[in-house]
Amino acid sequence: MKENKINTKKSIFAFCDLCGKNKSVYVRKHSGQNLCSQCYIKSVETIINKTISKYNMLSPDDKIIVALSGGKDSIALLYNLIKIQKNTFNSKPLVAISINEGIDKYSSERIDTAQNFCKKYKISHKIYSFKEEIGKTLYEIIEIKKEDFDFRFPCNYCAIIRRRLLNDIAKDLGGTILALGHNLTDFSETFLMNILYKRFNLIAQKSLSEGNKSINEFYLRKINPLMKLPENEVALYANLNNFEYYKIKCPYRKEYPILRKKVLDFITNLKIHSPEIEFNLFNGFLELSEILNNEYNNSISNNCLICGYPTNNKICNYCKLIDDIG
Amino acid sequence: MKENKINTKKSIFAFCDLCGKNKSVYVRKHSGQNLCSQCYIKSVETIINKTISKYNMLSPDDKIIVALSGGKDSIALLYNLIKIQKNTFNSKPLVAISINEGIDKYSSERIDTAQNFCKKYKISHKIYSFKEEIGKTLYEIIEIKKEDFDFRFPCNYCAIIRRRLLNDIAKDLGGTILALGHNLTDFSETFLMNILYKRFNLIAQKSLSEGNKSINEFYLRKINPLMKLPENEVALYANLNNFEYYKIKCPYRKEYPILRKKVLDFITNLKIHSPEIEFNLFNGFLELSEILNNEYNNSISNNCLICGYPTNNKICNYCKLIDDIG
Repeated sequence: MKENKINTKKSIFAFCDLCGKNKSVYVRKHSGQNLCSQCYIKSVETIINKTISKYNMLSPDDKIIVALSGGKDSIALLYNLIKIQKNTFNSKPLVAISINEGIDKYSSERIDTAQNFCKKYKISHKIYSFKEEIGKTLYEIIEIKKEDFDFRFPCNYCAIIRRRLLNDIAKDLGGTILALGHNLTDFSETFLMNILYKRFNLIAQKSLSEGNKSINEFYLRKINPLMKLPENEVALYANLNNFEYYKIKCPYRKEYPILRKKVLDFITNLKIHSPEIEFNLFNGFLELSEILNNEYNNSISNNCLICGYPTNNKICNYCKLIDDIG
Repeated sequence: MKENKINTKKSIFAFCDLCGKNKSVYVRKHSGQNLCSQCYIKSVETIINKTISKYNMLSPDDKIIVALSGGKDSIALLYNLIKIQKNTFNSKPLVAISINEGIDKYSSERIDTAQNFCKKYKISHKIYSFKEEIGKTLYEIIEIKKEDFDFRFPCNYCAIIRRRLLNDIAKDLGGTILALGHNLTDFSETFLMNILYKRFNLIAQKSLSEGNKSINEFYLRKINPLMKLPENEVALYANLNNFEYYKIKCPYRKEYPILRKKVLDFITNLKIHSPEIEFNLFNGFLELSEILNNEYNNSISNNCLICGYPTNNKICNYCKLIDDIG
């Protein structure tokens, strides 16, 4: 009986497989590794650094603009970019940008969190808003679009506008790189969404390769240094570092039963028995996006009649939306 | 009030959008069409015939072997192939083959159902069994493999053996075509499984194009005339035709929480709001399998040291399993 008790204790208080000294705080399911908090933090930072160097995400001449929502991902990203700059990297000063969509308390509290983080680390932080940039808050846009026969989920409108604003603001600020906090889970989810909707052109466009010249002319190069880290690992990293980040989910995501939520639940459920699924999806995305990039490279043939950005139609989705909400 | 009542009745007892005469029995969700039972049956048969001709599935010289499990899909398939032969097609007499896996009552009752159908339609029906062909029933194989550290779900073993036996038996019978009852739902499910496990080589191999010569030498050409019909539409077709088919699901599928079941539940759940999802997946499979077929065409480089069939290892999965169960 005593033996048994000791064994149980051993399995609860396992030691770190890396340093062998400290107690484990996390078992990395897909590798089976026990990690203490220090080694865990180091391992996450190693993954981020290796991702940046493997995909040549940064060069010394870059002016990096970081999209800072105030959530765990963008805070972890900014923190690491600050560290990289301090230690080895000599690019121009980082600039963090945040966009207030105007989703009531959710947007403003999130931006306060982002602002506090930037103050603490003395990073230049610039705040923009849907209201000032396009004249309407997301809330106002949804109220207008709700009446339309082709009303889509708020996330659709938010994504179209946010993506364009981030890109254009980063360009205006003289940025050469737009750094985004998308993690492995985001990538897997988006890849699976694009498979379910057969949006192969979007998978192709997200390829990390040089890509399409006609697109590169308009869009700043985006980098995703957290793309090899599952969401729960970024959260643990942020918690172990005691980052103050904004934890509340967008109220629109709760209110609308968007497919993206169902897809995420499905992946989360599969991960219980098959922790490798998320990595399979991400690696599948990497491989397929390269193959499809070759197939679809010349698929965008038009330029939006209003803004000139590449589009598959006459008017791009952004300009269509701006026109709709007049 | 009366008006309202009439309207309600109208919507419950809608008329067929095709003939305009009979009452609708089915609304095809992805097209919005109301169909009466006669027009529904006709529309299903048109889809099957168009699939066969679009993909040149049959030619007058063919000797068609039909894999008949006794379920709705293979019964519906055989019924249509009989009709096609009677009306237009002059290939050699059809032969139906059934394989008894030895899953207790499930296998034997299913085969009785298949046998009754063939008797009724005077089709040559040949029955084989795991026990006679490889010396063990599936039940016996599972009991042996259960002890192994690398035990997998029964469906894995069953699929490896059934696929090989069907192919070899059909070749032995002089067949030139092996007709299978896989429907649109089966294809979507398998495609999504292969995406989740990043089995791009399997997606490539299932391409409907001419494919890999080194594989074609060993495997009979397979056709899937029901591949454009969702599972529920095949079930309704079988019911409206009053086919006697076997309705019970395999007990192993109930017992083991296989990923395939979770994937099917996910698709079924998505279909409620997005009836097009299954078609997206199928069309995605068609397009991607062609693209990947070009990429992976030469990926199988070995021949199994035991049976000579193409494999990515030294010994193929079938021979490994046969050797294991000794």
